[in-house]
Amino acid sequence: MDEKKLTPKSENYSEWYNQLVQRAELADYAPVRGCMVVRPYGWSLWENIQDALDSRFKATGHVNAAFPLFIPMSFLEKEKEHVEGFSPELAVVTIGGGSVLEEPLIVRPTSETIIGYMYSKWIQSYRDLPVLINQWGNVVRWEMRTRLFLRTLEFYWQEGHTAHATPEEAEEETRQMLDIYTDFALSEAAVPVIPGRKSETEKFAGAVRSYTIEAMMGDKKALQAGTSHNLGQNFAKAFDIQYLDENNTLQHCWTTSWGLSTRFIGAIIMTHGDDQGLIMPPRLAPIQVVIVPIFRKDEEKEKVMAAVDQVKAELADFRVKVDDRTEVTPGFKFNEWELRGVPLRLEIGPKDLEKGTVALARRDIPGRDGKSFVPQENISATVSEMLKTIQANLLEKATRFRDEHIHEPKDYEEFKEIIAEDGWCYVWWKPDAENEARIKEETKATLRCIPLDQPGGSGKCIFSGEEATEKAYFAKAY
Amino acid sequence: MDEKKLTPKSENYSEWYNQLVQRAELADYAPVRGCMVVRPYGWSLWENIQDALDSRFKATGHVNAAFPLFIPMSFLEKEKEHVEGFSPELAVVTIGGGSVLEEPLIVRPTSETIIGYMYSKWIQSYRDLPVLINQWGNVVRWEMRTRLFLRTLEFYWQEGHTAHATPEEAEEETRQMLDIYTDFALSEAAVPVIPGRKSETEKFAGAVRSYTIEAMMGDKKALQAGTSHNLGQNFAKAFDIQYLDENNTLQHCWTTSWGLSTRFIGAIIMTHGDDQGLIMPPRLAPIQVVIVPIFRKDEEKEKVMAAVDQVKAELADFRVKVDDRTEVTPGFKFNEWELRGVPLRLEIGPKDLEKGTVALARRDIPGRDGKSFVPQENISATVSEMLKTIQANLLEKATRFRDEHIHEPKDYEEFKEIIAEDGWCYVWWKPDAENEARIKEETKATLRCIPLDQPGGSGKCIFSGEEATEKAYFAKAY
Repeated sequence: MDEKKLTPKSENYSEWYNQLVQRAELADYAPVRGCMVVRPYGWSLWENIQDALDSRFKATGHVNAAFPLFIPMSFLEKEKEHVEGFSPELAVVTIGGGSVLEEPLIVRPTSETIIGYMYSKWIQSYRDLPVLINQWGNVVRWEMRTRLFLRTLEFYWQEGHTAHATPEEAEEETRQMLDIYTDFALSEAAVPVIPGRKSETEKFAGAVRSYTIEAMMGDKKALQAGTSHNLGQNFAKAFDIQYLDENNTLQHCWTTSWGLSTRFIGAIIMTHGDDQGLIMPPRLAPIQVVIVPIFRKDEEKEKVMAAVDQVKAELADFRVKVDDRTEVTPGFKFNEWELRGVPLRLEIGPKDLEKGTVALARRDIPGRDGKSFVPQENISATVSEMLKTIQANLLEKATRFRDEHIHEPKDYEEFKEIIAEDGWCYVWWKPDAENEARIKEETKATLRCIPLDQPGGSGKCIFSGEEATEKAYFAKAY
Repeated sequence: MDEKKLTPKSENYSEWYNQLVQRAELADYAPVRGCMVVRPYGWSLWENIQDALDSRFKATGHVNAAFPLFIPMSFLEKEKEHVEGFSPELAVVTIGGGSVLEEPLIVRPTSETIIGYMYSKWIQSYRDLPVLINQWGNVVRWEMRTRLFLRTLEFYWQEGHTAHATPEEAEEETRQMLDIYTDFALSEAAVPVIPGRKSETEKFAGAVRSYTIEAMMGDKKALQAGTSHNLGQNFAKAFDIQYLDENNTLQHCWTTSWGLSTRFIGAIIMTHGDDQGLIMPPRLAPIQVVIVPIFRKDEEKEKVMAAVDQVKAELADFRVKVDDRTEVTPGFKFNEWELRGVPLRLEIGPKDLEKGTVALARRDIPGRDGKSFVPQENISATVSEMLKTIQANLLEKATRFRDEHIHEPKDYEEFKEIIAEDGWCYVWWKPDAENEARIKEETKATLRCIPLDQPGGSGKCIFSGEEATEKAYFAKAY
């Protein structure tokens, strides 16, 4: 670990983020431009995210499968908006086994097309519906400006692809998955996302309707943290996904797709991190408790380590790491585990042995305020409670921060001032793609979402002044 | 499901395999030549394989990470044997984001090179060693003749890559991982593999020493089901993976790699399958018990389904599927679940309700012999015992089959006869690459492995007649 202090968030947020990702050993740059290596600590966080999502997917009837990495170029061209959206970002395989390929293959940027093709083979009758398949894998988008986790050429994600008999069912599925993402973000990652609908301008290339969860990062910029798309019959028609209904009539299916990626790790870092480093939400933390033994003499060591072993055994239900290195000081260890965001540090020294106590230091509350001395007895229950408290506190803090930076400007002038200071604007909005484009040009803010939660009634559109029936969030975004 | 009967194994083994994989919905052909789609039933089997291996890897101190899909062409060229071994099989990306790339990128066929490059950045001191990292992912090898699971352009696997301070540690790791594969194959998949060393001819491109687990398929051909390689300092020297030892001297590391792939699914199919279809080993089976309710009248249905619900609840510890379709007959369901290899079928009908029993039908013993009527009381314990019995029986049957087809020819003439009938030969062997090549040319048999388990002593080499101190297995292979 690099012993230099992190650049403070307030000084240079972007530099703070880059240093943190690398020093905490979450990820590293690969030798190919824009690609990343997810290091074991980062991958362990992703595994916990995967578990939390996968169990929710399976509980709602979804199953996993694996579709090919390579897609014939011609497939992408079958859906007009889709090919326009993805063409500029493709990686293309032109040589295989030493020969030039007759038809170049693209490395999947997303799998609607190849999955659509397979569904057209598998689906015959209404009895085959719904098809509820998810895939965990890697995809490639040739991005020009990349940042670890936030935007990389290759990234890891899950992509769900479902086929239904009716538009109602497809919409219900799209919304159900958005709800699952929202629940995951709030209860597992303590990231207070706002679920909503994307505007026509911002929706997925090929979707009828896109939903998103939007999160506010520590620099107040918005991050799209997961999306769920109702694809209508666009892909079903492009790929002939048809079924015989109960009256023996051939019908096109209604399909959806939804995805959440390693980008979410960026959301966790930028929602909770501080100038000391990462703060991992306890439910997803690769290490929930780090135990640091404290001793000077050899005789102390033996007794302290015996107590450490006992405490570790009692904490078998948690993800615990004992840092028993002898070449570095306890102070060094404290800094390192703070940098890496372990939610709870447990210290045991000779004085604790006498008193039958241990010291607990909360990562979310720095210094003395976060430190307490608790009995060694019942340590498992104490730790369990404290992790819950930390989890709740992180969500509360992040929600407070977010709400403090959401404003309701009275006019477009005030709107521009708020955006200039990186705040979010919550405003009445009458849908209009041209006006949306002008706002983006003038302020760099985009329409993040039209939240599901609407006040009702109507008001004057912030830009056009016309009557509007929905409110929307505008912000600068990653 | 296709209602036609499977082609019998004895008639056309290869056709039997291809039909089975597709009709059991394990996998399907993708629209790109040689690529496969792993369908939910097949992927669920792979998830169970992943869990069984991953817990063994983690219990021995390994962690997971993710390295990039794309590798600069120049990396492969740094290790001479490695590039020679893999060059003919590469998929090459030459276009990215609409532009021709300055240096083409290869889609990883395996990751020794890119991981070696990263290790050279991460490893500084003896304190950083050992590094024990595994990766679950997809790789691409441009194969000309492909078969679902056995050999596909893209396949799924885990690849472990470790770095050590001494050659002894590296060898110990290589052997430990071979032991883990062996234990997994025997205790989870009921596939009786033979662990051993590869000859110089058959070893991995870039390894000092390769180990393998070899399995006998139902047509008696050998299948290499997992490999573990001691890479010596070959990759450490090619990629400058160096560390400062305790005396502050710069040393090259000793590295290993080991992998097991979706090919193993082929091994499971061809070890246990019969003319009715698949037989899944209970410990890995996606569905361990299928419950088929039997009734004619509506009043029967209600009572039967109540009993089904109760039994299902009592079997909460198992992977259970209730097949409550009404559009097909119980007989149709029996055939379908036999085809798909569910180890145990549980039937409940009106007569069972009267007697408080259920019928259990074992997949590994066809017909009446495999059927029994057991009390509904304590059903969970009964099912647990029966699944264990089936698991043990599958291993026993496969081991018996294997041993019946391993022969010890007295001379090379007899050797050729045995190989001509697809048997395995267990013979004294004096290492000689030229002789090995001649045997391959004359008989199509390859040296599968020099088993770890050796009789000791010495004998005459089956080919050269010279004194040999080790025995080896020869067979035709997939």
